[in-house]
Amino acid sequence: MENIKRPHKDAEELGAVVRGVLNDIKQRGDKAIKEYEQKFDKVSLDSLKVTDEEIEEAEKLVSKELKDALVLAHDNISKFHSSQKFESKKVETCKGVTCWQKSVAIEKVGLYVPGGTAPLFSTVLMLATPAKIAGCKEIVLCSPPNKEGKLHPAILVAAKIAGVNNIFKIGGVQAIGAMAYGSESVPKVSKIFGPGNQYVMAAKQEVSLHDVAIDMPAGPSEVAIVADETANPVFVASDFLSQAEHGVDSQAVLVTTSKDLMKQVEDEIQRQLALLPRKEITEQALKWSKLIYVETIEQAMELINEYAPEHLILAVKDYMKVADMVINAGSVFLGNYSCESAGDYASGTNHTLPTSGYAKAYSGVNLDSFCRKITFQELTAEGVKSIGPTVAIMAENELLDAHKNAMTFRMNN
Amino acid sequence: MENIKRPHKDAEELGAVVRGVLNDIKQRGDKAIKEYEQKFDKVSLDSLKVTDEEIEEAEKLVSKELKDALVLAHDNISKFHSSQKFESKKVETCKGVTCWQKSVAIEKVGLYVPGGTAPLFSTVLMLATPAKIAGCKEIVLCSPPNKEGKLHPAILVAAKIAGVNNIFKIGGVQAIGAMAYGSESVPKVSKIFGPGNQYVMAAKQEVSLHDVAIDMPAGPSEVAIVADETANPVFVASDFLSQAEHGVDSQAVLVTTSKDLMKQVEDEIQRQLALLPRKEITEQALKWSKLIYVETIEQAMELINEYAPEHLILAVKDYMKVADMVINAGSVFLGNYSCESAGDYASGTNHTLPTSGYAKAYSGVNLDSFCRKITFQELTAEGVKSIGPTVAIMAENELLDAHKNAMTFRMNN
Repeated sequence: MENIKRPHKDAEELGAVVRGVLNDIKQRGDKAIKEYEQKFDKVSLDSLKVTDEEIEEAEKLVSKELKDALVLAHDNISKFHSSQKFESKKVETCKGVTCWQKSVAIEKVGLYVPGGTAPLFSTVLMLATPAKIAGCKEIVLCSPPNKEGKLHPAILVAAKIAGVNNIFKIGGVQAIGAMAYGSESVPKVSKIFGPGNQYVMAAKQEVSLHDVAIDMPAGPSEVAIVADETANPVFVASDFLSQAEHGVDSQAVLVTTSKDLMKQVEDEIQRQLALLPRKEITEQALKWSKLIYVETIEQAMELINEYAPEHLILAVKDYMKVADMVINAGSVFLGNYSCESAGDYASGTNHTLPTSGYAKAYSGVNLDSFCRKITFQELTAEGVKSIGPTVAIMAENELLDAHKNAMTFRMNN
Repeated sequence: MENIKRPHKDAEELGAVVRGVLNDIKQRGDKAIKEYEQKFDKVSLDSLKVTDEEIEEAEKLVSKELKDALVLAHDNISKFHSSQKFESKKVETCKGVTCWQKSVAIEKVGLYVPGGTAPLFSTVLMLATPAKIAGCKEIVLCSPPNKEGKLHPAILVAAKIAGVNNIFKIGGVQAIGAMAYGSESVPKVSKIFGPGNQYVMAAKQEVSLHDVAIDMPAGPSEVAIVADETANPVFVASDFLSQAEHGVDSQAVLVTTSKDLMKQVEDEIQRQLALLPRKEITEQALKWSKLIYVETIEQAMELINEYAPEHLILAVKDYMKVADMVINAGSVFLGNYSCESAGDYASGTNHTLPTSGYAKAYSGVNLDSFCRKITFQELTAEGVKSIGPTVAIMAENELLDAHKNAMTFRMNN
């Protein structure tokens, strides 16, 4: 699509740097990790693992107000993700041939929680809660320490609420390497989840080629808002800006059937922007953002489905009808009261979602992301009779005689 | 695990070659594809798309026996994959906050079916059937033509039975490039499925970094068999060999609690091997294969879960009990009558499965592989009251004021 261009990514150029760090960690383990922590996070660490004492200390540093908020958010995330539990169903496809799927948790998962300008404790809840519900046996969490060698207390409290205590003070590429290969301190995992900067993304892609699975590829965050004349311009502008404040490469797009609304939103964005502490970041992101007028909701949804937004707000009168027209999106927010920040924090849906158009092929993180569906089949002697000849003929025609034998020996038994 | 080493992969070294071909196809489309078809498949093609006439002609060339077999296999695969349909469930996580998932088909998918020594028409059924059930709108199938510029008739008939008619005579890296980038003839897709040789695998990984999703990474096929004294050595040997005949880098592993059985299987393998047409390939693969004696089923399953086999046959007395001990496997075959070839062709389960230990993190192909779960949420004014303060506090503590505003403006409305 020509008219909604996403910010440029240059992840490819980071490849060499990232591969160098990863190889070093693969070879030298903890020693290398500590050196990179010194280099990138400017901190000298004796031990990488967060101690029980540090978690207790963190609990004292977090206000009751925030703790209560974390508990409520965790409750809602738990409710929604628990409802995603898979129920196995046995199917007799032919007489004597029974097949079923069983959902089994991935044994060892790694969660990455970025540090940086803001402590993303909400991401701890979004990743650790479903991992725990799925039943993952080993849940490792890595997050970069500050210069005093501490993690933000709210990150530790969120981890405690979610029931995770295998926490390491490791950030960036070195965290991804530690979880992908394992080290003296850090257990090797089978799948790595979580957002991060370009280096973290590049590292996740690199390790996903050979060593572990990852949740999804990622790019800068984005929102698309479809609004008609019934939308509230103050709300729309606030949703627009709440996306833009994420980072200079975030993107917000409004597609509206109302020229009046578009004008009001434009004015309202300027009014609200002036009052934001993150005004400068937000202003830069607004350069990537767009307000687009279209004549019909159908045209709006065509544009949206081509763009495949991470977040989609449908601030339109008949939002349930328009919801049925959604083909490509990560998470959808319906009506005037469903702001993106509801889902970012506390409604119960996950906020780890496909960006950069990946919503065309990927789901956001959900309970399934922490499980595999293993198939089982049980054939009786009668089952062999039902499908034996079919298997034998197909195997023969694929020139695979041993495959045929495996069935005919059973048929002739 | 030291004692079950998998065959070596050297996919990395193919990277440069593969990237060259992919870039060329990205730039020059059909023209480049045809040149590579000439170079690699030794065929000069005027048109890449299979015509309706070619499909009709193929129908005449396939025996009724094989056609009937394809229909039965398709029926079973349909039944099992249809049973995987997702039912949306609305959850009120808090008063006025309703969340749900909706499963939506990926619009455009690409299926790759290898050519080579055997025509893998079974793979057509395994990929096209669930794609069709999921409701994918555009299903593209690529397979390498022979030197006469034809696809194997059984591949075309299988595609017809599965309801796919967007078929292209393109093999190898050029097929993956065509589907990832699109060309004058071939539609661009969002996700590519299917097995292939090392070049195809490397191409899939390469395009998955930036352009499309792929089903899963892949390596050579493999089976692990757990057997006790109740197993039938003739059956076990035939399963062992049916894996080994796939290719020189295939791997079969027997883990047994019975020394008698192990000896009998060893002898039986030699006896059956002597009669196989693909004896030479099979013999080479046997070099990678192993028969391992352990004292208990628990030890066997520990070994198995560490190895994480693509296929796992449980030829043991209490197979339902042992099935509960499976943590890492792609597809599991229970008891003496459930041979791997049942699932390879016609029982209904999918045969596109995670190899190389990827079963620790990946599921095999199933209906979900062709869908995304999009989350929806609807907040009422009451919902804003329920979670508004929580969202506001969390946003404030993450230093994201515009996120907070989006909620507080609604709370104050």
